[in-house]
Amino acid sequence: MKTIPSSQRSQPHIVIVGAGFGGLQAVRALAHAEVKVTLIDRQNFHLFQPLLYQVATAGLSADEIAYPIRSIFQKQHNFEFILGEVQSIDPVTQTLCLPGQQISYDYLILAAGGMTHHYGNTTLKEHAFGLKSLQDAVKLRNHLLRQFEKACQETDPDLKKAALTFTIVGGGPSGVESAGAISELVQLLLRKEYRCLDAGDVTILLLEASDRLLPNLPADLADFALKTLREKGVQVRFDSQVRSYDGKQVMLANSKPISTHTLLWQAGIQAAEILQAFPAEKDRIQRIQVLPTLQVPDSPNVYAIGDGAALLDEHGSTLPMVAPVAMQQGVHAAKNILRQLQNLHLLDFRYKDPGMMATIGRKKAVVHLKGLSFKGGFAWLVWLVVHIMQLIGFRNRIVVLINWAWDYLFYEKTVRLIGPE
Amino acid sequence: MKTIPSSQRSQPHIVIVGAGFGGLQAVRALAHAEVKVTLIDRQNFHLFQPLLYQVATAGLSADEIAYPIRSIFQKQHNFEFILGEVQSIDPVTQTLCLPGQQISYDYLILAAGGMTHHYGNTTLKEHAFGLKSLQDAVKLRNHLLRQFEKACQETDPDLKKAALTFTIVGGGPSGVESAGAISELVQLLLRKEYRCLDAGDVTILLLEASDRLLPNLPADLADFALKTLREKGVQVRFDSQVRSYDGKQVMLANSKPISTHTLLWQAGIQAAEILQAFPAEKDRIQRIQVLPTLQVPDSPNVYAIGDGAALLDEHGSTLPMVAPVAMQQGVHAAKNILRQLQNLHLLDFRYKDPGMMATIGRKKAVVHLKGLSFKGGFAWLVWLVVHIMQLIGFRNRIVVLINWAWDYLFYEKTVRLIGPE
Repeated sequence: MKTIPSSQRSQPHIVIVGAGFGGLQAVRALAHAEVKVTLIDRQNFHLFQPLLYQVATAGLSADEIAYPIRSIFQKQHNFEFILGEVQSIDPVTQTLCLPGQQISYDYLILAAGGMTHHYGNTTLKEHAFGLKSLQDAVKLRNHLLRQFEKACQETDPDLKKAALTFTIVGGGPSGVESAGAISELVQLLLRKEYRCLDAGDVTILLLEASDRLLPNLPADLADFALKTLREKGVQVRFDSQVRSYDGKQVMLANSKPISTHTLLWQAGIQAAEILQAFPAEKDRIQRIQVLPTLQVPDSPNVYAIGDGAALLDEHGSTLPMVAPVAMQQGVHAAKNILRQLQNLHLLDFRYKDPGMMATIGRKKAVVHLKGLSFKGGFAWLVWLVVHIMQLIGFRNRIVVLINWAWDYLFYEKTVRLIGPE
Repeated sequence: MKTIPSSQRSQPHIVIVGAGFGGLQAVRALAHAEVKVTLIDRQNFHLFQPLLYQVATAGLSADEIAYPIRSIFQKQHNFEFILGEVQSIDPVTQTLCLPGQQISYDYLILAAGGMTHHYGNTTLKEHAFGLKSLQDAVKLRNHLLRQFEKACQETDPDLKKAALTFTIVGGGPSGVESAGAISELVQLLLRKEYRCLDAGDVTILLLEASDRLLPNLPADLADFALKTLREKGVQVRFDSQVRSYDGKQVMLANSKPISTHTLLWQAGIQAAEILQAFPAEKDRIQRIQVLPTLQVPDSPNVYAIGDGAALLDEHGSTLPMVAPVAMQQGVHAAKNILRQLQNLHLLDFRYKDPGMMATIGRKKAVVHLKGLSFKGGFAWLVWLVVHIMQLIGFRNRIVVLINWAWDYLFYEKTVRLIGPE
């Protein structure tokens, strides 16, 4: 067991847990400060989560949306990286426990993000696919492609139908994007490569518990998304609440069970486990309720940001769990720590909303930006530019662009491997 | 259990087991014949094995050297693909067993290739890394990168040294290429990203049981490879025979044990299991001894090709286990089957040797071509062009070229993810 007491260090030690959008921005904002920055993550890469569904549907390969953390910060000299999972945090002694080592901090930024929430339903936890990690995405891609291979060999019509019934639960941006992308993968496979199957064999279902899609966007955009999905052959069912799933059949609250060998659960998210265990007030989905300065109450040198923090906006609603919130909070938390070090008063966080967007497959998207709504092809271009620009690393951008240009010109999904997971 | 008797089919049914270089060429050579072609593989992709070591050393990503089989043959109308592992073959009833189904054939081409051979040493089988499948490569990459992360946190100097001692066993082309590529990955990581470590902490060992490298190439090229590897910091030890390996220490026949947490075994290859089980004469590494027509003796409608077949050349030595042999044999077996169908006499296989080559990292290679030897930068360019041209799919070629150009210009390894395996 190795312990590095922070007092041995000449400079204040700022520890950041989580290399998501928030954590990276915090590290970056501290680049020129006279501090020591340690970033801890369970993975050695930053994951561009908004495009995870593209990996799951064979549009992009895993390494196109993942970028090695050490590479991102190779020129930042006050930066250190530790690969590992934080097991516990003690705000009294100001230490974090990792397997085999303890780390002391002067300031801590909790940026560990969110994870899938099954609301205690163990059948979902066991049998449903999620889409929060790179491994989730690769597993889902392998599974989707394997269903087509199975269906080709299957002689029992019921089993064939169940293998080719793909169910997505949750009508938020993630669910809508996944349903659109799965529909396009299916069309491509049927048309080009599985002569043994035809369109009538496949069912794509999007189940939503409420009566509308995309609750954070205006109704006209939600209607457009619904229309587009239906044109793509996705059956959208509202007021459909999932009771349980055994890997073969999904039981619903108000209607008949559905035989489906694929259930993608995108209807729940909660704060990461390490945040749930931190001694502080939480909201309903275990996010830490932070002060407007982003500090955790009663722990003035601990900040929580991003998907794992709950903060009300000026209208009294909690800020959404999206990348821009995390990124702005990362910068803000870093700045407030530097102000603490200079004994300046701390500033409250104000969210500058850059708009919301969701894509519904090839060439269709909805964008809501500064009160304006866009939909269709132009919205898709906006979505494309915003996402490509945000991808870290110039090379990643080129490769992703080629991949998409290829997709677009030749209508191919390029990464259809049932590969290592 | 589904059985498709071949008599129900109007056309002769040719089944090919294995989608390696040989299997693909056989399928292609049958494209315009009045036959039904079924290709069976355990994976849904063709793997470009010569570049597998690039995936293991973070130079290329997995999907850049793997290409979906259905995509390759989407325009070949007499083609069918079955994803699955052949469990047994009965040449008397002319059937193959797969999980849940039986397949009958009129003609069979065994193109299942080779697998790692540990010569019965279970300690190697359990603890050593291999490099024959995509999963092998991804596992090794994750492991190599993890050693650097571990070494950074390790306080015990012996454990740190063992974590950073990388041992490759086997001085053939695969061993030489891996050692060169690992050395370059290590140099990059040390120089750019692991300030906590320095060059003196790292040992790269290439162990060879005989007294020279690259036994299939002339001595001057082997000497050049040796010199280049030593310049790259690889310690090459001859007459070093491995006795056992427990994951921590490798025991040698004639010298002291070496503490190493990484042992890559590239010193043995044998025919795939399904070939070993086939009732026919085998050689020492279980390859089927075929007739000059590539037929299996006593099974005139069964052919064996590539790494799983043993055939003598005009000088009385067995043809090498390399891609060009497999590819030429794939075409030849297909042609002989078509001759059998027309009651023509069968032709003997003659190997047209296109030369041998091996690369030793960035910008250095050795090439032996029509009696001429090239070495150094020009040889590397030849190697590069040959390999890029052979990669299947235009998009794959572009993406690999960009990746390499990037590597070359910025001296970065781009795919350093410890990702799903």
